[in-house]
Amino acid sequence: MTSKGLFVSFEGIDGSGKSTQARRLADTLTARGHEAVLTREPGGSPGAEEIRALVLQGDPDRWSAETELLLFTAARRDHLERTIRPALAAHRIVICDRFADSTRMYQGLSRGDLRAAVDQLHELMIGQEPDVTILIDMDPAAGLARAKSRQTVEERFEDFGVALQEDMRTGFLALAQEFPDRIRVIDGNRPEEAVARDVLDAVETCLP
Amino acid sequence: MTSKGLFVSFEGIDGSGKSTQARRLADTLTARGHEAVLTREPGGSPGAEEIRALVLQGDPDRWSAETELLLFTAARRDHLERTIRPALAAHRIVICDRFADSTRMYQGLSRGDLRAAVDQLHELMIGQEPDVTILIDMDPAAGLARAKSRQTVEERFEDFGVALQEDMRTGFLALAQEFPDRIRVIDGNRPEEAVARDVLDAVETCLP
Ligand SMILES: Nc1ncnc2c1ncn2[C@@H]1O[C@H](COP(=O)(O)OP(=O)(O)OP(=O)(O)O)[C@@H](O)[C@H]1O
Ligand SMILES: Nc1ncnc2c1ncn2[C@@H]1O[C@H](COP(=O)(O)OP(=O)(O)OP(=O)(O)O)[C@@H](O)[C@H]1O
Ligand SMILES: [Mg+2]
Ligand SMILES: [Mg+2]
Repeated sequence: MTSKGLFVSFEGIDGSGKSTQARRLADTLTARGHEAVLTREPGGSPGAEEIRALVLQGDPDRWSAETELLLFTAARRDHLERTIRPALAAHRIVICDRFADSTRMYQGLSRGDLRAAVDQLHELMIGQEPDVTILIDMDPAAGLARAKSRQTVEERFEDFGVALQEDMRTGFLALAQEFPDRIRVIDGNRPEEAVARDVLDAVETCLP
Repeated sequence: MTSKGLFVSFEGIDGSGKSTQARRLADTLTARGHEAVLTREPGGSPGAEEIRALVLQGDPDRWSAETELLLFTAARRDHLERTIRPALAAHRIVICDRFADSTRMYQGLSRGDLRAAVDQLHELMIGQEPDVTILIDMDPAAGLARAKSRQTVEERFEDFGVALQEDMRTGFLALAQEFPDRIRVIDGNRPEEAVARDVLDAVETCLP
């Protein structure tokens, strides 16, 4: 089965199940004969992964919010040019674990009041949105507990605590209201399989 | 002798003598009792030097013009926050070997027609110009010959050839017309000492 290109992103607070659901969706679509490309941000292309390492390693305060925003935008531009657009041009389904909405939240909201700069920078240097964004909404404390049960070396973004997780959840839901045609909110407070079913339903309605 | 902060940048085509004259000016001003800080772009702060290394090492085509522009802007933001602004706040004279005009030329002109994006990005994320910019103007072929006599490991930007050097010279002179209050054009086709004298004259008129 061939398919026209489709760009799907996963968003949501830490531990909400983005990576889990992105992987499941890629596996399911592949099993059904689609060509799916699973990718992630920050990163997703060799250059962008190098920028990711530069941003995330070392002292958390080594970059200001503005510099970090520029570095992530550079990474996104590279990811878009080298991974996402070529895959879409080849009519693949691109499944991206976080995209620009994460920047709108993390750089735009939690690290100072940069949302206007985030949006202008996006318009100027990126200019691409996913066709559909799956926002996995869930209880912040439960998400944090999940994220903490899965420790990795890059824990910077998990260190914010439950108050910030609450703000992020509110921010993501506001974003869903801002972009109602693109963002589908799915309840993540349920077993993986139930969430996966809703994700697949939402994506299938977008497939040609 | 104390002095109010002053931000001086050096611009010009490859081999025009920017680094030579920036160093001489810093030495002369220091000998006269000023607190001068000699810095450079891309780079000039620990983070910005890391970004510089990321951009300049490896295959010259590994980054698109747009990604490179974002990376250099990230480096400039870090340089501004960590080196330039603190020095100016301490009333030092900052002498910077290349600054935003180099981006206007190299990313804005020679790597595609990005000048509008360069300017918008500058306004959005940098917003600072030098108090005075010394543009060392010189014959492109002679500049190229000088630059080639001084080989370093980072030769990417020297590989363009004389046709591009001609375009860059024309572009820099147009920039001087665009910003007549800030940019002072100095003839670089002369011995170091003669150029240095004119540079010092131009900077001294800006000192309080
Ligand atoms: N529906 C679910 N129910 C219970 N546990 C889950 C569910 N989905 C994912 N998990 C588990 O929760 C943890 C976090 O999941 P995952 O890594 O997918 O979240 P994430 O949104 O990608 O987090 P981060 O923002 O930190 O990357 C993992 O250990 C995962 O196995
Ligand atoms: N006025 C001059 N006359 C002759 N040679 C000069 C003069 N000024 C500098 N040079 C020599 O020319 C070479 C290039 O000078 P310099 O490195 O200062 O140029 P630059 O503008 O910084 O070049 P680049 O753009 O490559 O960094 C050096 O070897 C330097 O010693
Ligand atoms: Mg994840
Ligand atoms: Mg130099």
